[in-house]
Formats: sequence, C-alpha cells, structure tokens
Amino acid sequence: MTVIYNRVALIGLGHIASSMFWGIKRAGLAGEITGYARSAETREIARDIGLCDRVCDSAAEAVEDADLVVLCVPVGAMGAVAAEVAPAMKPGATVTDVGSVKRHVIDTVGPHLPQGVHFIPAHPLAGTEHSGPRSGFAELFDNRWCLIVPVEGSDPDAIDRVVRLWQGLGSNVDQMDADHHDLVLAVTSHAPHLIAYTMVGVADDLRRVTDSEVIKYSAAGFRDFTRIAASDPTMWRDVFLSNKDATLEILGRFTEELFALQRAIRTGDGAHLHEYFTRTRAIRRGIIEAGQDTDAPNFGRGAAR
Amino acid sequence: MTVIYNRVALIGLGHIASSMFWGIKRAGLAGEITGYARSAETREIARDIGLCDRVCDSAAEAVEDADLVVLCVPVGAMGAVAAEVAPAMKPGATVTDVGSVKRHVIDTVGPHLPQGVHFIPAHPLAGTEHSGPRSGFAELFDNRWCLIVPVEGSDPDAIDRVVRLWQGLGSNVDQMDADHHDLVLAVTSHAPHLIAYTMVGVADDLRRVTDSEVIKYSAAGFRDFTRIAASDPTMWRDVFLSNKDATLEILGRFTEELFALQRAIRTGDGAHLHEYFTRTRAIRRGIIEAGQDTDAPNFGRGAAR
Repeated sequence: MTVIYNRVALIGLGHIASSMFWGIKRAGLAGEITGYARSAETREIARDIGLCDRVCDSAAEAVEDADLVVLCVPVGAMGAVAAEVAPAMKPGATVTDVGSVKRHVIDTVGPHLPQGVHFIPAHPLAGTEHSGPRSGFAELFDNRWCLIVPVEGSDPDAIDRVVRLWQGLGSNVDQMDADHHDLVLAVTSHAPHLIAYTMVGVADDLRRVTDSEVIKYSAAGFRDFTRIAASDPTMWRDVFLSNKDATLEILGRFTEELFALQRAIRTGDGAHLHEYFTRTRAIRRGIIEAGQDTDAPNFGRGAAR
Repeated sequence: MTVIYNRVALIGLGHIASSMFWGIKRAGLAGEITGYARSAETREIARDIGLCDRVCDSAAEAVEDADLVVLCVPVGAMGAVAAEVAPAMKPGATVTDVGSVKRHVIDTVGPHLPQGVHFIPAHPLAGTEHSGPRSGFAELFDNRWCLIVPVEGSDPDAIDRVVRLWQGLGSNVDQMDADHHDLVLAVTSHAPHLIAYTMVGVADDLRRVTDSEVIKYSAAGFRDFTRIAASDPTMWRDVFLSNKDATLEILGRFTEELFALQRAIRTGDGAHLHEYFTRTRAIRRGIIEAGQDTDAPNFGRGAAR
C-alpha cells in the first residue's frame, strides 16, 4: 500500500480504465483519481457507480494537477485526446496509455506533449469481451503481463513509477520496443481477433444454416470465436487500421498455411494433418505452464446454465 | 432414475465415453456398463479408476448381451470397430455412436450391422480440450445439445430409448438429417477448429517472434485458439477427412470474407470494419441467451494463477 501518484487522471472510462480504477483503489496506489469520458451518459454512469473520486466534464479539468494521465481511449482517438489534455498538464507529469498498438500511439501522441511531460506508453495484456464503465473489476490485471514501451530518452524514474503502478495492479511487467510489440501482438491478438470476427460473419451469412441453428448448436470452437468476436468494434477497428502492416503480414502467412491444410484435406493427407495438430498441442501446454491460462476443462467453466 | 438399458457397452474409452459412464451412473440409466479400448494401457487405467463395471479385453466380449453399444472411437475407426462387434451383438440390440460427422459414420458402420440390430447415430455437442479415460466427468453433457440422426427406417422405440438416454445424461435432444448435420457442424465446429489449428501453427513458425513470447504474451484471442487447437489430433484428422466437402465449402467462404476484411484494412475502410464487427456481436448475444455459454467475463474464469 504505497501511494505512487498523488493524483491520477483516467481519460476514457471503459473496460480498462474502470478496472484500473478499482485496482488502484484495491492497492491504494494513488491519492485522488479523476476521470473523464467524452460521452455524458458514460460520465453519468461513472458518477452513479462511484467510478473515480471525481468525474470531470472536460478532459482539461480532469488532468489539472495530475501526476499521471492515463489515456484509455481507442487507439484512433489517442492523438486528438493528447492534443486536448497537453496544454492543461502540469510540468513533470507523466502520460501513459493502454492502447493495443504502440508505434501508432507514439507517433500520434508524442508530438502533442510539451517539454517536461514524460511519455511512457504501456499495454496491459488483459481484457474480456465486455466493454463500458460498468465492466471493470480490480482483478483484471492480476498475473497478466503489462508491456511497457519506453520512447527514446524516457526518464528512468518516470518509467520506474509506471512499472510500479502496473505491479501494484497485480501485473507482471516487461519492456519491449514498439515495433516488436506490434508484431508480437499481431500474432497473439490482432490476427486471431480478425479471424474470429470473420468466422462468425461467415456463419451469419450462410443461408442454408440458420442463425438459430448456429446459436443452438454452437459447440466448443465456434463458441470461443463468438466470445472474441463480441469485443468492442471501435477499439478493434482502430487496432487493425493502426497496426496495418504487421496484421496484414500475419494474415498472409495464415492464409498460406490454411491453404496447405485445405489441400491436405482435399487430397486426404491424414499424416500431414495429424502431425500439424500434434505440434499445436505443445504450444497450449506452454501457455498453461506459463500461467497465462488454466488447465481446468472448458476454461474452468461449469456447464452453461 | 429409470434404467433404460440393462447392459450398455462403451467401445473406446476416451473423453466422451468416460463422461458417459459417469453420467449414466449419476442418473442410474443402465444396469451394467462394460467397456473396451484397443490400447491395453487405456484398459489398465480404466480398471484403476473404476471406469466401467467391467473392462473387457476384446470388443466382442464387451458387446455380448449388451442392449446398447456405443461406438466412442474416432470417426475414421468406426467402420472397422462396427465390423468387429457386429457378429457378437444380440438381436434387437441398438448401436449408437458419438462421432462428430454423421454421413460418413452411417455409410461405414451401417453395412456391417446385421438384420435386427438397430442403428441410431448420435452426436453430443460437448467436449473439452482434454482427452483420454481420465478426462471424463458426469456433468459434461448437462444442458448441452445432443443431435440424433436416425437413418431411414429406424425403429421409433429404439430412437426413443436413445433420446431418453441423452436426456438422462442432462442433454437437450434434437433430431436432424445427416447431411444437414454435417454442414451445421462444419460451420460451428469443424472450420473453427481448423482455423484455430492454423493460427497456432503460424505463431509457432514465425521466426522473428519467439515461442516464449507467443506463450508469455498470449492475450485473449490467441489463448482461446490454443485451447481449441489442443484437442485430440486423431479425432480431428478423422473429422476433416470424413467431412471433407462441407469443411472445404465453409473454408472457401471463410477465406473469401477474410480477403474482403484484409482489403478493408489495407485501404483503411474503417466503416466496413466497424459495421462487420458490430454485426458479429449480436450472434454472441444470441448464444448467451440460448444458454450455450456464460456471460461472465473471460468465460467465468478468474485470473489465471
């Protein structure tokens, strides 16, 4: 229970920001937490449920006197929000973000920030398919990774405080270069999301199979895809548009491999399929050993009721 | 607690058979349950953990005097197993199966069965990424669907008993034509599995991103794919080879849609992406309302430990 920042401002009050609020409170990491959301309805909900110590009606008001400003808006909105808050920030303060793409955020946020304000981009690898101010919970970041992506010349003390904030939120912290981050995430998150969206769309389009059949008989496999494909549309639109090159590269490799497996099915090459499916099992094992998931059947779900 | 069959024989003692055993015992649906697995090691494990009232060393012995024989082997092995057990079955008995593909099973099992033995194919839409005799649990089928796919001229009483068995195991039961079943499953299960396998393979292949990075930073999305891709390789090889046409058709539509989304990313068509992602959300909502999954964040998992 060490206060790391006297005042933290959360800009954008969605799934990640609301989880940060409850997590910071749980660990007592900040004195006061202010918040701002563009939508009046979101600010209203935040006030109703006690999300933030003080919900402000402008971003400038929220960041006034803040020691840390966390940009929690979709990646495509980061630049505009940075331009809005920059003039109101106090010298020596730190700006961080939670965006899923880092090069684009650095390129669009960085130029707006005044001399003397530190910029320490970050990306917590956590989230559920839910969104909005009501969806946050303090445990979201527990034992998850948070990647810190310092820009050239970042102040070591400012980095250290952001690292301690995320550790205080329960996360493991690593540092990574922005371009490498964007490639790794294209593999582990961005391409899988686009693929899941696509498959769910195909199911919806198929005339000979009704939606109600797809829904009723959704076994493991498709059901997991629908969870992924239920994620926030605006957030994901921005991710794909701002991590275009890495995402397209991975999708290119994906279709290449998929065509090879399709050919194996067409030609009846069972050995190729079996070998491929055996290899992918090992990766799953590694993920469980790395503590990123549970080994309980069905993700530890009970039977759905 | 009504005994539906005096004696049930489970041929193959993997995930589904072992779950059926515990489920039948839970509900008292059968007198004696015999079991057989081709592997001596599996039979050994079954005896150790009390899986089946009697584990037999041949399939013929297991089905002797059985009122119901359940074929729980990979789809590609169904025909050979049917040929093995057919001569030992008693007249008036019923054969059913749990295969994920129905046309192929009907075509390969049917011809081996003697006059007077009923064949009622079935497919429980349940399973986890685990496999083997130790992985079963009685609750696996609770509130899941089981699709019964009667062949032409099936005896109504024999169908009715199989329906009651699955209801007794906790499932909801529907009847469906074999070809339609295979198309619906290609959409909801077979294509999604192949896609998940492919994406996990791509991640493993990519030289600039290490396996340990993929594993450590596996966020939602990829993590769900690895779960799917951890499923039993033999079972899935057989599914794809025996439901070739429907799987290839769905994969063709999938790549078509994926290319359209890739082009939207390349050309920066955010409106197309946003519209697509918004539409897929509705399907998820339908699945939760149909009771096939939980609305709890992260599938109701807590943070992984």
